[in-house]
Amino acid sequence: MELIVLGAAAGGGLPQWNCAGGQSSQVWNKTRLPQSQASVAIGNERTGYVIINASPDLRQQILQTPQLHPKPNHPDGVRNTPIAAVIVTNADVDNVAGLLNLREKQRFSIYGPTKVLEILQENSIFAVLDPEFVTQRPLETTETISPIPGVEIELFTVAGKAPLYLEDSLGIQSGDLGFTSGIEIRTAASKTLVISSCAQIDQKLRERIETADHLLFDGTVFEDDEMPQLGLGEKTGRRMGHLPISGTDGPIVQLAHCNLKTKRFFHINNSNPIWDEQSLAHRTIRDAGWDICHDGLVFEI
Amino acid sequence: MELIVLGAAAGGGLPQWNCAGGQSSQVWNKTRLPQSQASVAIGNERTGYVIINASPDLRQQILQTPQLHPKPNHPDGVRNTPIAAVIVTNADVDNVAGLLNLREKQRFSIYGPTKVLEILQENSIFAVLDPEFVTQRPLETTETISPIPGVEIELFTVAGKAPLYLEDSLGIQSGDLGFTSGIEIRTAASKTLVISSCAQIDQKLRERIETADHLLFDGTVFEDDEMPQLGLGEKTGRRMGHLPISGTDGPIVQLAHCNLKTKRFFHINNSNPIWDEQSLAHRTIRDAGWDICHDGLVFEI
Repeated sequence: MELIVLGAAAGGGLPQWNCAGGQSSQVWNKTRLPQSQASVAIGNERTGYVIINASPDLRQQILQTPQLHPKPNHPDGVRNTPIAAVIVTNADVDNVAGLLNLREKQRFSIYGPTKVLEILQENSIFAVLDPEFVTQRPLETTETISPIPGVEIELFTVAGKAPLYLEDSLGIQSGDLGFTSGIEIRTAASKTLVISSCAQIDQKLRERIETADHLLFDGTVFEDDEMPQLGLGEKTGRRMGHLPISGTDGPIVQLAHCNLKTKRFFHINNSNPIWDEQSLAHRTIRDAGWDICHDGLVFEI
Repeated sequence: MELIVLGAAAGGGLPQWNCAGGQSSQVWNKTRLPQSQASVAIGNERTGYVIINASPDLRQQILQTPQLHPKPNHPDGVRNTPIAAVIVTNADVDNVAGLLNLREKQRFSIYGPTKVLEILQENSIFAVLDPEFVTQRPLETTETISPIPGVEIELFTVAGKAPLYLEDSLGIQSGDLGFTSGIEIRTAASKTLVISSCAQIDQKLRERIETADHLLFDGTVFEDDEMPQLGLGEKTGRRMGHLPISGTDGPIVQLAHCNLKTKRFFHINNSNPIWDEQSLAHRTIRDAGWDICHDGLVFEI
């Protein structure tokens, strides 16, 4: 069973469409490879794949990933896909917009918290996913599913915040529970956690991470105020529902004692200096036993 | 003033994510270049650009198009864009989903028919486009706007159909008016028409085309039933609101007398044999004075 990082960058990607600063500028200058928005695929050729979060870059991510291409001589005919299911962990544009690419009367399942599926129902544009072909199944926290053989997936609540576009109507602030979820993936060989948004590492989350083999963790910002510092916006990491990597309440300090096989940052913002292997921030995370994800990274789980 | 073809393919693109048949298979095999979903940009470095239709591939299209990159040393700071406006001609996913890529508190204007803007309002996901920065302006047919200096743009009604995801609720069938629009672009040098969906060439449309210099015209299918013939789906071109190129009521016959400087097919489906320069269909359109668009094509208007 393999895990494929389809996209390693936070919302907006690297480069961000309207940003000529920092590391985005290096991509515009072609001195750095672009990175697409956070998503992973899990599975293998025999079982098919589960996509965790449908980023706005999903069509491009499928093009870049031979494992996700449709196959010639398939029993279903020329129209087929190895994508068996998509799990959406929250309703942010970053995690659901890619569903709009999966139209064309193709059978697959969408799993997500009831709240998230309700938002999809309320937005008529998602009706392009014809319910005759695309089944939406509620997946609540603590529930375990097996959307492909040999993989158990459990959704768990992580401290986070409401989707940006619903903040005004819902009035939910950073740190509130219930809108952000992590994913636990269990195979015969290992336990992997994918946590792309996390506003707080509490005792329960720490205990879950202690027993895992592989971790992909929210690496949005290295320092809480790096975006304002770089002139890239006013918001801090915490305001966006993300713990800064370097904070005393952040993952380096809080998860230092966790002895996993791999710990990688994921969902990395274009402002985050850990993208740069020459940076002090990158050396800091490497010295602490962490690595970063990048588009196309594949590892066995 | 230039026109840049950001994407030349019809909805789904070439290849289509779940299609291993026909010309899609050649892209998966890397024997054909991919083509993204239909969109054009108009403008120049001095005036900025207007995007006509925000395809789901818009982030990738911006990456591929140096003219649309943000600029270093811009008076607005590191966050800037040459994109001044986006015009959406209908509410199909193909034409509006890309708006979700244009978040991040960047000033620009969206123009579109009131019906289309209402659909954006009803879909809360589009609230990521903060109204403090993104202005939505109704653009009705026969109205003329000048979103960038030196360019006049007029929207006109074309025979078409309702967006697929609203067909059930609205009960609107192919051929109904009011949901599909063409774009007339006038500069000091020329008049250009961009018509990506057209279910019928009537006298009014023919007269408009007769007086144009450049035409980008709905090239979705060459033959009405080519998709069923190739096993790529049940729908005919007409059922999807598109005239077949080769029909006696299609553009080759109906526009044969129009003496434009350039006539190009645009919004070309992955099933359409005109993509293949060796095909009889391609020779047919060339012999009739037409060419095809491809991603990255630029011409002076």
